[in-house]
Amino acid sequence: MNRPFTFINSAMSADGKISTKERKQVRISGDIDFDRMDELRASSDAIMVGIGTVLADDPSLTVKSRYRRDTRKNKGLDEDPVRIIVDSKARTPLNADIFKKGTGMRIVAVSSSAPKEKVDALSKKATIITAGDEKVDLVLLMGQLSSMGIQRLMVEGGATLNWGLLSNGLVDEVFSFIGNIFIGGNSSPTLVDGEGFLKGDFLPLELISSETIEEGVLLKWKVLNK
Amino acid sequence: MNRPFTFINSAMSADGKISTKERKQVRISGDIDFDRMDELRASSDAIMVGIGTVLADDPSLTVKSRYRRDTRKNKGLDEDPVRIIVDSKARTPLNADIFKKGTGMRIVAVSSSAPKEKVDALSKKATIITAGDEKVDLVLLMGQLSSMGIQRLMVEGGATLNWGLLSNGLVDEVFSFIGNIFIGGNSSPTLVDGEGFLKGDFLPLELISSETIEEGVLLKWKVLNK
Repeated sequence: MNRPFTFINSAMSADGKISTKERKQVRISGDIDFDRMDELRASSDAIMVGIGTVLADDPSLTVKSRYRRDTRKNKGLDEDPVRIIVDSKARTPLNADIFKKGTGMRIVAVSSSAPKEKVDALSKKATIITAGDEKVDLVLLMGQLSSMGIQRLMVEGGATLNWGLLSNGLVDEVFSFIGNIFIGGNSSPTLVDGEGFLKGDFLPLELISSETIEEGVLLKWKVLNK
Repeated sequence: MNRPFTFINSAMSADGKISTKERKQVRISGDIDFDRMDELRASSDAIMVGIGTVLADDPSLTVKSRYRRDTRKNKGLDEDPVRIIVDSKARTPLNADIFKKGTGMRIVAVSSSAPKEKVDALSKKATIITAGDEKVDLVLLMGQLSSMGIQRLMVEGGATLNWGLLSNGLVDEVFSFIGNIFIGGNSSPTLVDGEGFLKGDFLPLELISSETIEEGVLLKWKVLNK
């Protein structure tokens, strides 16, 4: 099936955590990495996050650089890429920053089990895509995004969405900045959570590059999907 | 308090996991990293693991290279470093490979809540150090190891022992090989589990080196204890 070229961008602690056990947002990387992320956003057709990340961090996912916003505009694009929330039960708050800030299309992907009144309310703020029964069917969703013209998709977490996409073979590359802290915690979210692969069935990667930036290391992995 | 120079050596997946949710041992690194680990073992006075690692993997923790064993012997050392199990409740099996394989001193560190009959049985296989009431008091233990002449201690996990040592300020350096797989899983053991640090209280690190070896990256961190 057609799907966008999809990459995950994430920052994790030296022990693989992307936030604390209380799901508190943590600034793991510095200004250089933040600027790299902004460039990735500006060069993408769409940015995707899971509902957990929206509820925990309320990110706007906008392009921050004025120059990059202008460059997109001059190309005839919206200043911000399409922003997509994967939200099986339609729990996205109507006052989420994704709706309040920035420009351009917002998409909330829900399952058919999402409460109708919540979906109706969200439909005033965003384009609704329904895919899957209990949970959003990510394979179907990716096909629909592709048919809408989204060719380059950036995923900004969290751990559960990363698992859903990776375990369905829907990710091409992963950027992972490894910062100079330990967070610890057996319930702290990691780069990839979910159910987990069993022994002998791990998802193989190929290291594309490793670069020391600021106080940490930026790794770029190619995902070797079957 | 005096304590040994202590370093953790570990291999983790690209998402920070050191084994699967079922605690199945995983070979994350290759022969070059394995040889590096063997050299670290041979250059240490003692090697420490937690009881979880013993129960899951039954490691012998011996030095594998004949040359390195001979070199130690020629220096008047035992061929293997002292091998230490941190085991609050004295659950180490009497037929553990640590007892069966290799040479030299074995230490089982227990708490005073460990069942007496189990401690008695283990005392025929190993030197018993009792420190702490319900759990092994790692600060006390490190002081005792230091007074026994152990100056350079290598820790080979697992996630809970790593947390206990790091959160008590007892670790100087961490070697972490990052392998080219995703394991995933919200309950898979990571490099540092336990309770976890809260926001604003993370353990700061300094990157000493980053090196591409085999299919992954070896990071060496200095722990910036307060």
